[in-house]
Amino acid sequence: MKISVIITLKKDVLDPQGKVIQQTLDGMGFDNINEVRQGKYFEINMNEKDKKIAEKKIEDMCKKLLANLVIENYRIIDVQ
Amino acid sequence: MKISVIITLKKDVLDPQGKVIQQTLDGMGFDNINEVRQGKYFEINMNEKDKKIAEKKIEDMCKKLLANLVIENYRIIDVQ
Repeated sequence: MKISVIITLKKDVLDPQGKVIQQTLDGMGFDNINEVRQGKYFEINMNEKDKKIAEKKIEDMCKKLLANLVIENYRIIDVQ
Repeated sequence: MKISVIITLKKDVLDPQGKVIQQTLDGMGFDNINEVRQGKYFEINMNEKDKKIAEKKIEDMCKKLLANLVIENYRIIDVQ
């Protein structure tokens, strides 16, 4: 089972890396961009046939390792 | 308009960072994971009302800056 997770910075947390990307794009002529925010993406392939259990485990992984819940949110976007 | 893009390593490209995450998770007791692959995620907020034009611009940004097409793929996962 392959699960896709996105980790994003919380809304009120500054994203300087995203800001730099926005400025760079602006310098390249993409000048109608309001904001760029960067996040992380993980594809996790696990031996687990039960979708619910797999999602539960992924949430656990996010809480314990993948995401810093003080400043980040996680969301599972796909389970195959 | 807010567009979400994911950049992933191509299938045959090694992902050492993903490997380390997998090993770490394994050491934490998540021992039924076959593979972890890491990617990047961007949320781009732009002044563009036409969905088609926005997608075209985002593709252009991916090709010119956000992704290295030699080793990476991009895909637009959401347009709002």
